[in-house]
Amino acid sequence: MNRLDDAIAEQLRQRFGSDFSTSAALREQHAHNTTWHENQPPDGVVAAKTVQDVCDLVRICHDNDLPLICFGAGSSVEGQINAPFGGVSLDLSGMDQILAVSAENGTCTVEPGITRLRLNEELRRHGMFFPVDPGADASIGGMAATRASGTNAVRYGTMRDNVLALKAVMADGALVNAGRGVRKSATGFDLAHLLVGSEGLLGIITEVTLRIYPLPEAMIAGRVDFPDVASACTAAIQGLQYGLPFARIELMDKVQIRASNSYSGMNLPERPHLFVELAGDPDAIAAQAEVFAAVVDECGGENLDWESRAEARNELWKARHNSYWAGTAVRPGTRAITTDVCVPLDKLATIVDRSRKELDHRNIFGMIVGHVGDGNFHVQMMVDFENAAEVESAFSFVEWLADAAISLGGTVSGEHGIGQGKIKFMEREHGLAAIEVMAAIKKVLDPKGILNPGKLLPVQSL
Amino acid sequence: MNRLDDAIAEQLRQRFGSDFSTSAALREQHAHNTTWHENQPPDGVVAAKTVQDVCDLVRICHDNDLPLICFGAGSSVEGQINAPFGGVSLDLSGMDQILAVSAENGTCTVEPGITRLRLNEELRRHGMFFPVDPGADASIGGMAATRASGTNAVRYGTMRDNVLALKAVMADGALVNAGRGVRKSATGFDLAHLLVGSEGLLGIITEVTLRIYPLPEAMIAGRVDFPDVASACTAAIQGLQYGLPFARIELMDKVQIRASNSYSGMNLPERPHLFVELAGDPDAIAAQAEVFAAVVDECGGENLDWESRAEARNELWKARHNSYWAGTAVRPGTRAITTDVCVPLDKLATIVDRSRKELDHRNIFGMIVGHVGDGNFHVQMMVDFENAAEVESAFSFVEWLADAAISLGGTVSGEHGIGQGKIKFMEREHGLAAIEVMAAIKKVLDPKGILNPGKLLPVQSL
Repeated sequence: MNRLDDAIAEQLRQRFGSDFSTSAALREQHAHNTTWHENQPPDGVVAAKTVQDVCDLVRICHDNDLPLICFGAGSSVEGQINAPFGGVSLDLSGMDQILAVSAENGTCTVEPGITRLRLNEELRRHGMFFPVDPGADASIGGMAATRASGTNAVRYGTMRDNVLALKAVMADGALVNAGRGVRKSATGFDLAHLLVGSEGLLGIITEVTLRIYPLPEAMIAGRVDFPDVASACTAAIQGLQYGLPFARIELMDKVQIRASNSYSGMNLPERPHLFVELAGDPDAIAAQAEVFAAVVDECGGENLDWESRAEARNELWKARHNSYWAGTAVRPGTRAITTDVCVPLDKLATIVDRSRKELDHRNIFGMIVGHVGDGNFHVQMMVDFENAAEVESAFSFVEWLADAAISLGGTVSGEHGIGQGKIKFMEREHGLAAIEVMAAIKKVLDPKGILNPGKLLPVQSL
Repeated sequence: MNRLDDAIAEQLRQRFGSDFSTSAALREQHAHNTTWHENQPPDGVVAAKTVQDVCDLVRICHDNDLPLICFGAGSSVEGQINAPFGGVSLDLSGMDQILAVSAENGTCTVEPGITRLRLNEELRRHGMFFPVDPGADASIGGMAATRASGTNAVRYGTMRDNVLALKAVMADGALVNAGRGVRKSATGFDLAHLLVGSEGLLGIITEVTLRIYPLPEAMIAGRVDFPDVASACTAAIQGLQYGLPFARIELMDKVQIRASNSYSGMNLPERPHLFVELAGDPDAIAAQAEVFAAVVDECGGENLDWESRAEARNELWKARHNSYWAGTAVRPGTRAITTDVCVPLDKLATIVDRSRKELDHRNIFGMIVGHVGDGNFHVQMMVDFENAAEVESAFSFVEWLADAAISLGGTVSGEHGIGQGKIKFMEREHGLAAIEVMAAIKKVLDPKGILNPGKLLPVQSL
């Protein structure tokens, strides 16, 4: 459905010149999902350079009932960048400046288009880093909009915890300051954290103030294998109960280990593994490593191996870092269907075990990697898309897993978000009353429904 | 203005029996502000025992356009519990059950009326604690509703960071599940954190799921004095930049120290002090203490003193714990006017110094205590309320300080909230566009404006 009639296109061309385009290649690129979601390209693309560009585009879209979809790095997983109702993709990747860094305050302020790796390059010069690491080199604006997290969340939290303030252009073109760039504030409704995770439905994030952290003086990485998933989970939980400040603690199941061995030419025991990282004062982490070793021993872990030099640490973590690519290599010709859920920690072993059985039962090749300190894990299924039954079985597993997570008190996504892929689970997880509150907020802040329609909420008019 | 006519009163009596009261003493008690705010009692009080009580009361208030104000422990500072438009005070202190504790998950679920000290008594049996400590023995529901924090926030964050999920009864009587009790979730608008800090204007919190933490194996407390506030702030910032995980780090200025010496019979040097606490593995905190000692030395700190035994630690922290009472004792016959602001860390020394000069210039006896790791500090002025000029000068100082904080990029309240006392600063801090978004959300979720009218937002119709 092309909503960009000639008059609107002319209006966009006049305002944005060559920053507005309807080229097929560009439109395709702006709906290029990194996952299995079908591409639904927008009718046009506007590359914004300034906040004023964003305000003006929103006003044009508002006046013409034209959908507006934000695009940062295009690395979202659940179809967040698609344009199911057409409209304009707003490319924010050119708004990528670092506006302020203060090591003293432990904060930085950035434009939304900067990616996390480039931000960290700059922060390193200040002796600081930004810990939230979703794997992909995502844009900070997109990470805020999807409430991203990743391996470091066990220690540093998610985007919810690390966005202090932001600026956003609302559906009527107004620029809102949401929050202040300070450690804490108790002054009014928390608009910043309403926008974090709103997936572009409530406003367009044009500036983000983040917490940043001093680079740790020292770091050690560890690897240990266990007879079963339950023992590995117990070791993680006990470590947390001892107060061990893991920088990361990751679970990989035996199928994932086997794939990684094959892909990376390693020879790890084909059993569930924990990969951990400790960071901080060298004496302090040495003490923590001893505590963890005792916990591991008690839980039946074997072959605990520590490395402190950067290269050796990277080698040790290679299996974890390559987990995604290992899957694609092990079953050539297949594509990945990935999903994530998050449950209370004491339910993690149960649901991981059940997932393994369910995958085997369905004869699906699926690997499991978990942020075990958060109760969050991913299942990456390598699926032959030529085989309709296999595809259907994989999607039905996604649904099975979502229901299993809900029934254990968990959530249908720890970090991928809802997008198009998980809308059908929203009411099951939150209940109708909560959905109605979300819909009411959407309706009052975006009465015409122009911001990212067809995402996140079960019912949206346009 | 009594909005409780006979018909409504009869309706309430029929539904709530003796849990509904219009006794003058009870009404006064439910508007008893711990601070200088004038008491504005409600027309009646309902003591809720169940969620159904809350739902039913909200429906009656909704049907009759009757204001509803929540009451937990009555320890809020900015007039949050007052009833400026009359109506009913909903006393939630009887809903004080602990519904679940899981050390493995690091979570507990409680009813809103439980106070933090009683919660911590119970958690201790599980080897856990809840760190948010605003000083007063506040109710957890009230702490969530005001986004409370306190001395531990530097390490553990505020209520924003520690509320994982909650349930709330909305203005139409619907019960909403906001969030899931897991470490992270990326599924929809963050209703839980919209309600945290909403001061009872958007919904009534009836259940809270919190993060809890393992009791540290060991703890040491330290005290050190500095030639000036700037050196003390620099030491705190440098400590944070070294990654020291202070459990608490508190600044007291020389006037506060003098008052505490006098009140508690101590003999501390009358200079700015830092009080710190380190907690965790004994070897790790020993290593951290050494790092801090080096930092202190470099910044000109003197007389650094550590204590590890519980009694000695409490003795060392006595000056800090007694700071509020020290003020009231030093100038008998006066009452306290307290205020708090929060600024970026690198502005803290500047604003504390300016505050001291401004207090002296106005000839106001004011003591300064700061959560220096957050950039948040309190000024407690001991004011003779018989002296109109002195009272006016103190209130004008509050305004001066709010403006100073805003101009330095800060916020007009780090942890006391807005209530009635700071409404006039809301637009200055947030700008009109943000206030309009807040007002739109209020309007759509509480169209009749029955929930805590006259608080937080500059413009509210009833």
